[in-house]
Amino acid sequence: MDKSNLLEKVVSLCKRRGFIFPGSEIYGGLANSWDYGPLGAQLKKNIKDIWWNKFVERREDVVGIDAALLMNNKVWKASGHLDKFNDLMVECRKCHRRFKAEDLGLMVDQTNSYIVRAPGEKKCCPNCGSKFEYLEPEKFNLMLQTFIGPVDPLNKLFALWLQFQKSDKHQDQTGKKIISEKINDLFSNIMDTLVFFRPETAQAMFVDFKNVLNTSRKTLPFGIAQIGKAFRNEITPGNFIFRTREFEQMEIEYFIEEKDWQKYFEHWREKMWLWMTDDLGLDKNHIHELEVPENERAHYSKRTIDFEYDFPFGRKELYGLAYRGDFDLRNHFPDPPYQDENGFKFYPHVVEPTWGVDRSVLAVLCDSYYEADDRVVLKLHPKLAPYKAAVFPLLANKPQLVEKAQKIFKDLKMTGLNIIWDDRGNIGKRYYAQDEIGTPACITVDFQTLEDDTVTVRDRDTTKQERVKVGKLTDFVRNKGQFVDSPNLL
Amino acid sequence: MDKSNLLEKVVSLCKRRGFIFPGSEIYGGLANSWDYGPLGAQLKKNIKDIWWNKFVERREDVVGIDAALLMNNKVWKASGHLDKFNDLMVECRKCHRRFKAEDLGLMVDQTNSYIVRAPGEKKCCPNCGSKFEYLEPEKFNLMLQTFIGPVDPLNKLFALWLQFQKSDKHQDQTGKKIISEKINDLFSNIMDTLVFFRPETAQAMFVDFKNVLNTSRKTLPFGIAQIGKAFRNEITPGNFIFRTREFEQMEIEYFIEEKDWQKYFEHWREKMWLWMTDDLGLDKNHIHELEVPENERAHYSKRTIDFEYDFPFGRKELYGLAYRGDFDLRNHFPDPPYQDENGFKFYPHVVEPTWGVDRSVLAVLCDSYYEADDRVVLKLHPKLAPYKAAVFPLLANKPQLVEKAQKIFKDLKMTGLNIIWDDRGNIGKRYYAQDEIGTPACITVDFQTLEDDTVTVRDRDTTKQERVKVGKLTDFVRNKGQFVDSPNLL
Repeated sequence: MDKSNLLEKVVSLCKRRGFIFPGSEIYGGLANSWDYGPLGAQLKKNIKDIWWNKFVERREDVVGIDAALLMNNKVWKASGHLDKFNDLMVECRKCHRRFKAEDLGLMVDQTNSYIVRAPGEKKCCPNCGSKFEYLEPEKFNLMLQTFIGPVDPLNKLFALWLQFQKSDKHQDQTGKKIISEKINDLFSNIMDTLVFFRPETAQAMFVDFKNVLNTSRKTLPFGIAQIGKAFRNEITPGNFIFRTREFEQMEIEYFIEEKDWQKYFEHWREKMWLWMTDDLGLDKNHIHELEVPENERAHYSKRTIDFEYDFPFGRKELYGLAYRGDFDLRNHFPDPPYQDENGFKFYPHVVEPTWGVDRSVLAVLCDSYYEADDRVVLKLHPKLAPYKAAVFPLLANKPQLVEKAQKIFKDLKMTGLNIIWDDRGNIGKRYYAQDEIGTPACITVDFQTLEDDTVTVRDRDTTKQERVKVGKLTDFVRNKGQFVDSPNLL
Repeated sequence: MDKSNLLEKVVSLCKRRGFIFPGSEIYGGLANSWDYGPLGAQLKKNIKDIWWNKFVERREDVVGIDAALLMNNKVWKASGHLDKFNDLMVECRKCHRRFKAEDLGLMVDQTNSYIVRAPGEKKCCPNCGSKFEYLEPEKFNLMLQTFIGPVDPLNKLFALWLQFQKSDKHQDQTGKKIISEKINDLFSNIMDTLVFFRPETAQAMFVDFKNVLNTSRKTLPFGIAQIGKAFRNEITPGNFIFRTREFEQMEIEYFIEEKDWQKYFEHWREKMWLWMTDDLGLDKNHIHELEVPENERAHYSKRTIDFEYDFPFGRKELYGLAYRGDFDLRNHFPDPPYQDENGFKFYPHVVEPTWGVDRSVLAVLCDSYYEADDRVVLKLHPKLAPYKAAVFPLLANKPQLVEKAQKIFKDLKMTGLNIIWDDRGNIGKRYYAQDEIGTPACITVDFQTLEDDTVTVRDRDTTKQERVKVGKLTDFVRNKGQFVDSPNLL
């Protein structure tokens, strides 16, 4: 099929069939935020559930946590995020577009941190081409901040500023001095109420390391896993759900002895490949490993691999696998937090596989989108499909057929399978409607059903039909997807 | 048992065994934030999965969504949150405790919105008893705010304020004027970058109503469900996970015709009772319905019930059920968003059952905590238990026992059941350790196992033991909890 405009097609399908809508759409949206609709919410949940089941519930060496999104500022001081995430931004005086100073090769004039000088020849604005000379940079924090506690500093600042202007107008020097001091106090104490939404899930696993270790009594090697939201005040969010300000991660910090790092790096590399090909069902030819070269790796990492996927907008990072050494635990714990059976204390090293949830959804949607003979088919792995099967009466105006089909539908649903009912339009249209949302099987109740208790089951991918005994339907639908029982409800 | 100090006991158990830890604990915590540890994360996930399965996947008339946490400000303007959540706070000049002006019966002096007057006789501070006369109130917003986009207003304000002070010092009137204007501009345009984290999940279901309706093609009555985080800048968070700044909700907006509201109110009332007693296994004597009287209900609600639970710190709201009329859809849609089969357009009415996730966890922990004969038992419903069974070799130093037990352990785990291994200490201690975390069954491999392939299974609640054939173990463990298969992985 013609895969040009694939992103537009996927976005359109998502909107049309209820996978993903623009967030706050009736109010004009909100800066590339997205809401998962009925089918998208189920697809995303299925991905997360399979991940949790595979990497937490079924493994003996991994336990999960679910930590708060707001953490103490000292976490971000120790992790380096408070420093490293503070970018300087400059604005072009002509077109008013903003850029990271660093991206333009601009240098901060150290004698005045509010002026940036373009070294050597003058730089030009990448947008409008006008020449930069001196620019006033603004600090920009990649972390989303908020205020907790009983004072809203911005409201308070506004009130004080109004008072200050009044005093200034009346040349009330005493008043000005008092209010100035209040404003200065407020700025110096801002970190008492200012907190940040986590920019990654990882730090929680490090900060909680001893609590998890003491309560789970695990010994090396073992991992701490988490699924949860993280937030980055991206300057240029975009490409649908690829880069958004709030996103979800599935992540494991796998704690090991230093000598074993290569072995476990390979272990997780293999597990991540299996996840992509076997669980998500992605075409392995669309996945590429990028060995991140030393000068682009974090200084503490001896090896990092990006798993890149051929998105319609280019080959981009899907997941990451990094060996982080003992950098993080050393940052957070003044004393070694781990003791081996001989009483020897040390800092465990860490291999960190990270999966983006939203990027998983996007890769799955792009990879399974097919067009053939005027139909659109989402060839989702059956484990991921929002609905496992659809049940139709051949004719909606024949009470015997509807009644029988309703019974089959309800019986299947009772087993816990997520099944959909459709009795609109003709059978062909219903097939197309189910193909488009990735339903693996369509079950039609026809007149033969009333005679021999068999139904027609039509396969999404082959479009082949076969007759199946009603009594065997549950097993048939389950086997089709090589489904496993979830322990979540067990 | 003695249920005094129950909260302290539950908190202690949670910390000791890894259900729930204080958030950012190694840095002194963060204002009543909590991290779910390995057992708590699993318990919470089980509750959410069962809920989603019961109310979304198994129902024909409910679909789910998963919306962004940050929404357009117009959502909160329309819903009333921007106004109603703006409380005035006053601070006692003596002890510096802060209170909501409204709670103290203080009135805002309309001639000067920055002064609050205590009407009639002077009020006293509820904390230190000193008399209030005039107080400077501060605006306080219950919603957590953040800034998105390339400018950090607070940093920018600080930079401008420094410049202003410099100009003021040098009596540079022109400079002062320019900078003043910049500061004023920044305050007037603050709403361009200021956004709020949602204070409830509900508004997303209303804002997305038409998108969901058009894509799911549901007809009344039908519901839109969501599980997700919400945020409130609580002035007094507390009572463990009962009231926190970030919390999780499970919620359904059930859309109906006005004439049917009483019928569906009763429908959800019954479903909520069944959830509490049958799914969570709470003692029905610990649950009480509070009919919220008219003067305490929201003006648009004809009926609201609070489901209260006897928490150790008193009878408090666990869940809520409200009939919201058509208030919300009218707020968001200028034209009726629903059309019936005759082409008649109207605003559907709404019955809204809301479940707190964290409060569910807390109620379950409190309700299932028992002490008997020096042992602590968490009588969790088996469906909720983090581990479904534990497997032990009778003696950890007998290789044949360990090998056989390992095989049984791995085989059980392979079926997807979340099983734990323990070979430390003696059998009695292992039983106690499992009782404390609510594991319904302990499976011991002993010498008889090697002869007749049976194991001892000991029941958590009765402490009775019975011999079970190894080949029947999976069924035995599943039947014990009347487990159902999850559709999540299907």
